[in-house]
Amino acid sequence: MSHNTFGHLFRVTTWGESHGPALGCVIDGCPPGIPLTEDDIQWAMDRRKPGGSRFVTQRREADEARILSGVFEGVTTGTPISILIENTDQRSKDYGDIARQFRPGHADYTYFAKYGVRDYRGGGRSSARETAARVAAGAVALKVLQTLVGGIEVRGALVQLGIHKVDRDNWDWAQTAENPFFSPDAASVPAWEAYLDGIRKAGSSIGAVVEVVADGVPVGWGAPLYAKLDSELAAALMTINAVKGVEIGEGFGAAVLSGEDNADEMRMVDGKPVFKSNHAGGVLGGISTGQPVVARMALKPTSSILTKRESIDTSGQDVELITKGRHDPCVGIRAVPVAEAMVSCVLLDAYLRHRGQTGGRVHEVGN
Amino acid sequence: MSHNTFGHLFRVTTWGESHGPALGCVIDGCPPGIPLTEDDIQWAMDRRKPGGSRFVTQRREADEARILSGVFEGVTTGTPISILIENTDQRSKDYGDIARQFRPGHADYTYFAKYGVRDYRGGGRSSARETAARVAAGAVALKVLQTLVGGIEVRGALVQLGIHKVDRDNWDWAQTAENPFFSPDAASVPAWEAYLDGIRKAGSSIGAVVEVVADGVPVGWGAPLYAKLDSELAAALMTINAVKGVEIGEGFGAAVLSGEDNADEMRMVDGKPVFKSNHAGGVLGGISTGQPVVARMALKPTSSILTKRESIDTSGQDVELITKGRHDPCVGIRAVPVAEAMVSCVLLDAYLRHRGQTGGRVHEVGN
Amino acid sequence: MSHNTFGHLFRVTTWGESHGPALGCVIDGCPPGIPLTEDDIQWAMDRRKPGGSRFVTQRREADEARILSGVFEGVTTGTPISILIENTDQRSKDYGDIARQFRPGHADYTYFAKYGVRDYRGGGRSSARETAARVAAGAVALKVLQTLVGGIEVRGALVQLGIHKVDRDNWDWAQTAENPFFSPDAASVPAWEAYLDGIRKAGSSIGAVVEVVADGVPVGWGAPLYAKLDSELAAALMTINAVKGVEIGEGFGAAVLSGEDNADEMRMVDGKPVFKSNHAGGVLGGISTGQPVVARMALKPTSSILTKRESIDTSGQDVELITKGRHDPCVGIRAVPVAEAMVSCVLLDAYLRHRGQTGGRVHEVGN
Amino acid sequence: MSHNTFGHLFRVTTWGESHGPALGCVIDGCPPGIPLTEDDIQWAMDRRKPGGSRFVTQRREADEARILSGVFEGVTTGTPISILIENTDQRSKDYGDIARQFRPGHADYTYFAKYGVRDYRGGGRSSARETAARVAAGAVALKVLQTLVGGIEVRGALVQLGIHKVDRDNWDWAQTAENPFFSPDAASVPAWEAYLDGIRKAGSSIGAVVEVVADGVPVGWGAPLYAKLDSELAAALMTINAVKGVEIGEGFGAAVLSGEDNADEMRMVDGKPVFKSNHAGGVLGGISTGQPVVARMALKPTSSILTKRESIDTSGQDVELITKGRHDPCVGIRAVPVAEAMVSCVLLDAYLRHRGQTGGRVHEVGN
Repeated sequence: MSHNTFGHLFRVTTWGESHGPALGCVIDGCPPGIPLTEDDIQWAMDRRKPGGSRFVTQRREADEARILSGVFEGVTTGTPISILIENTDQRSKDYGDIARQFRPGHADYTYFAKYGVRDYRGGGRSSARETAARVAAGAVALKVLQTLVGGIEVRGALVQLGIHKVDRDNWDWAQTAENPFFSPDAASVPAWEAYLDGIRKAGSSIGAVVEVVADGVPVGWGAPLYAKLDSELAAALMTINAVKGVEIGEGFGAAVLSGEDNADEMRMVDGKPVFKSNHAGGVLGGISTGQPVVARMALKPTSSILTKRESIDTSGQDVELITKGRHDPCVGIRAVPVAEAMVSCVLLDAYLRHRGQTGGRVHEVGN
Repeated sequence: MSHNTFGHLFRVTTWGESHGPALGCVIDGCPPGIPLTEDDIQWAMDRRKPGGSRFVTQRREADEARILSGVFEGVTTGTPISILIENTDQRSKDYGDIARQFRPGHADYTYFAKYGVRDYRGGGRSSARETAARVAAGAVALKVLQTLVGGIEVRGALVQLGIHKVDRDNWDWAQTAENPFFSPDAASVPAWEAYLDGIRKAGSSIGAVVEVVADGVPVGWGAPLYAKLDSELAAALMTINAVKGVEIGEGFGAAVLSGEDNADEMRMVDGKPVFKSNHAGGVLGGISTGQPVVARMALKPTSSILTKRESIDTSGQDVELITKGRHDPCVGIRAVPVAEAMVSCVLLDAYLRHRGQTGGRVHEVGN
Repeated sequence: MSHNTFGHLFRVTTWGESHGPALGCVIDGCPPGIPLTEDDIQWAMDRRKPGGSRFVTQRREADEARILSGVFEGVTTGTPISILIENTDQRSKDYGDIARQFRPGHADYTYFAKYGVRDYRGGGRSSARETAARVAAGAVALKVLQTLVGGIEVRGALVQLGIHKVDRDNWDWAQTAENPFFSPDAASVPAWEAYLDGIRKAGSSIGAVVEVVADGVPVGWGAPLYAKLDSELAAALMTINAVKGVEIGEGFGAAVLSGEDNADEMRMVDGKPVFKSNHAGGVLGGISTGQPVVARMALKPTSSILTKRESIDTSGQDVELITKGRHDPCVGIRAVPVAEAMVSCVLLDAYLRHRGQTGGRVHEVGN
Repeated sequence: MSHNTFGHLFRVTTWGESHGPALGCVIDGCPPGIPLTEDDIQWAMDRRKPGGSRFVTQRREADEARILSGVFEGVTTGTPISILIENTDQRSKDYGDIARQFRPGHADYTYFAKYGVRDYRGGGRSSARETAARVAAGAVALKVLQTLVGGIEVRGALVQLGIHKVDRDNWDWAQTAENPFFSPDAASVPAWEAYLDGIRKAGSSIGAVVEVVADGVPVGWGAPLYAKLDSELAAALMTINAVKGVEIGEGFGAAVLSGEDNADEMRMVDGKPVFKSNHAGGVLGGISTGQPVVARMALKPTSSILTKRESIDTSGQDVELITKGRHDPCVGIRAVPVAEAMVSCVLLDAYLRHRGQTGGRVHEVGN
């Protein structure tokens, strides 16, 4: 990962600002011969799209992903896939104050100090709007994984909204499509609605935790030591706007476990190795174990709030500012499909490199 | 980060196995003209060295880091610095069982499945012994940072040992050199000794949390979007053996904060921007803010324990195994200097790229 | 260089096929604060544009380069610059034969064998049309070089058309803008016109040699050993369609030189080091010397000719084919601005990395 | 290629100076399960070793390549292979003049200007001694290629010594092992001996041309557009000391060819595609064609000669200097095994990436 590109053999470069004419990505190294249409991408775009409920930004974007290259007669050709998403709802307005003031907790100040110039409209490059391009790339990655490897599912859920966690005994993936929070726990929804309505009406915001589970990942993906699968997942998730923490498997909970409790014991069942637990979250020594890959990320509350905060401006004056405009009261919600997309891209890239170095076969016990 | 190399302009490649003749690293892209001797490295090696107390592995290694290239007449030349560390205490013994059995919670099984072959002696490449090479590289990075930038300190501490956390009101960096845990809280030490003695005598192990703070990092380091400073820190820390979670600033705690509480407000003080808090942990939008960079990582308990666990072997048979030998009851302790090293390398690499793209100057407010 | 991206700190990714809706590039790592408009790019696009004379393809393209991101209020922001060039003159026609047959000397067969699928329309990804995106990127690189470093000029010329070489005694850079060949030798033009008219009317094609000279490059750019400036130039030029050879300075002529003749002697003149000759072509040990950087590349004749050739098709049948359509009788001509663009990008990338590792200062003798 | 590393999935990092204690390389990404011993490397080291005849430097080095990691019980493990070669014949002497003077045509001045410091002993990092590490890596690459793919041979020859070219009608690979020039033309040897004896005794030096042919490379390797196989070969060969030009197939000769003459026509023979000629040198569109891959490189004469030349020194004074010591009168000779090594590494790296992206199968016509 470097600059605005991530991945090695399956490599994604994103570009674009919140209020520019368009944004997009170039996907390079995609395996050839994979059936791919814009519909394979659009369903994922729609999941992340703003304006879907009162709990996300009211900006209206069609978020239509247009494929400009790399696909011919319905299949990928192995050449770069350029995807373009037009911005259509950039409101023209006076940015006077935002242009000169730094929102506390936002990237405004650091972009200014680093570059001396920034596109302040809607956060410019640092806006979560950029994640639309990631979702497009992730949809391509998932399609490739499901075509080449089969049996892989990458699914995310919101597991904590501020102080409220889901009840894992109620976990039902199907529920994530049935409520505006991507919650897997139907019982959580009424309380979350009331809680987030209160925050939204107060012009405030709140943090969250997102969990992504990849089922069906074979053993062997990931390349120790500095391309460990968990390291690449951590890097990828930490690039998502507002993310401040990343965990694999037990994560921070592992700190209080004993070696006995943490060990995922194994048995042979029907001639296959089977783990009796998954504290590891599907990764040992940086290599996938064959169990579900489980990653979580914590997101801070968005810094765009209606409460007055102290800050400074570009001329070096103290100011007090509030941030008006259309914002997500909890950026964690729309981060769910973004996290899925990043995990999909990381997994495919790990698979392709694994196939490159080793041929991709699994060495089975007893052979 | 890829394969066994991390970094872009300041790039470190490590090699070597636990029980091979030696291990080491090649540091490439080091700025020229930096005074550097083996003493600049050895103090760091000594902090990580095994055998220092009863709470770490009893393996005895001098861990002498020898510079083979890239330094001439006492200064770096800009060419690759090769560092060699000989292994001297690899006990010759019968590895019969370990050679064929997979320790639960260890990389044994995944290396086998991925590569079909592995150096099983002492964990081979997946052994924490590899981190000696990282510590050498980190010492070089720190020397460069302190020479070129000045005023930077990178310090780590153990902040949680199993269920016991330090009392942050007692925080004193000087204490980390005074106890075998790198604890910054002198008051924690007696309880930790008793607690870990119990675990050690039971042949068990326990997890931990390590915190690293980099003071003196200027504003502007880190390159959005996929070379964000926090993303690179997360990737680097997650490559350390046994790490399962990484946080920046408030980390997972940010999930329960409101936008008001999380905002780090700013004021001009003596003509300089000053933050009134540091929930961000020194990184906003992937770029350093000028405040201390704060990262934490959670480590699982080592999988090498004396309690019998169920597993399988290479021939596909169920087995029950215990792991004898010299091991750390809490790998988190010796991970402290390793985490410092990784943070130092990431910071220097970010600085060099920042200097490359922008010239390295900070754009100050009011200009 | 890898996949469809070249460069390290100044990094260019291109995408697009000859007959797709558009093509373009993403420029990443561009220094911030550089004034940049579409006009800064368009003049270069116009030099490469098809349809300018009877000696190049008659395809008509406006080749308007549109900046979609990374520039705000007229200056670069340090974020990715996405440039889009629409294809407007892709003739709809029956590609039946080309779709199934492999043109001898063309990439048709190798793309088919590698990917199993290819966009056969106009050569798809392997078409020289892709070089439009390179020229756009090169124009940006040149603008940055001239802004940051100053005094740099990167100029190309056609120095050999088939068997006809320019007379170097007649060299006048201004002439390259005055004839359809980019020839620096006005006296060469009539003979070249007659020669190429003959080839063109015969439906044949011919090879060529292009030379690029970069004046004003300071000493110190390039990073031994595997990022040597000459190695990066060679790699970049060799990626241009039809290029089969690359030289620096004396090039293949150096094989017959003695050490005495090849040595570029030095003297101090007005307190500055001055070379008395430039056999090295401005690069020693992979690092620029401060003299003009001189690179040459040889291009084969285009494989699209009207003479019947033996080949095979996708069904494994022998065929005889001729290639109709609009083609360049000498692809070397329009390769001149492409070569300039690649050299500009390589130089800027080398400069930024040099600035990153060393700070960018030159160590002068006598200090 | 960047810094001191080349390759992507099969990646080689070299380190070391001419007169340091040792030099070596780290090979990362090597496929696992390949039988590998030090003997597999030593034969190649011996071909490049100094002191083999009066036509090469009289420095005496055993050049024993020692494997320190990455191989266990005789097979590669997929982890980094560290190879160490000790320097044993660095003569201790007074380097006073060389330390301060810049040899014309040498990297002395550019290293000084770039880094401000250099290891002047024997050329330091810029010495051809570094190529010992490349040869070790190339031997590993060749072993892997021959194990995984089979049928591949990579062979080099000196085809031009100053003004004398080999007679290609006399080409016999076996002869390259029978004379001190790696000449494939036995008839060339007496004349070359006399010619080079004259140059050697005069304290002069001369340039040369080396050709490498890789037989048995399947169709499909190389990744357009910026990882074209020919581009990677050009980059790799241009990093070799003294190389000033690189060609593929017809190379610069292609400039005078017509499209008819240059086209490599194809026919189906026994159900397989067969080319009737190989002007392309085995690469079309950046992808291997299945024909022999043919690359040539031109080397300048070494700059270390006994004739007095004008130069300057570090204090900014004009000087006249001659270069005593042990040097190659024609560096092209010992560059033959180095070129073979670089080609082997490039090919393996291309193969592994091809296998990664596409699975590695060839799409055959008629299917």
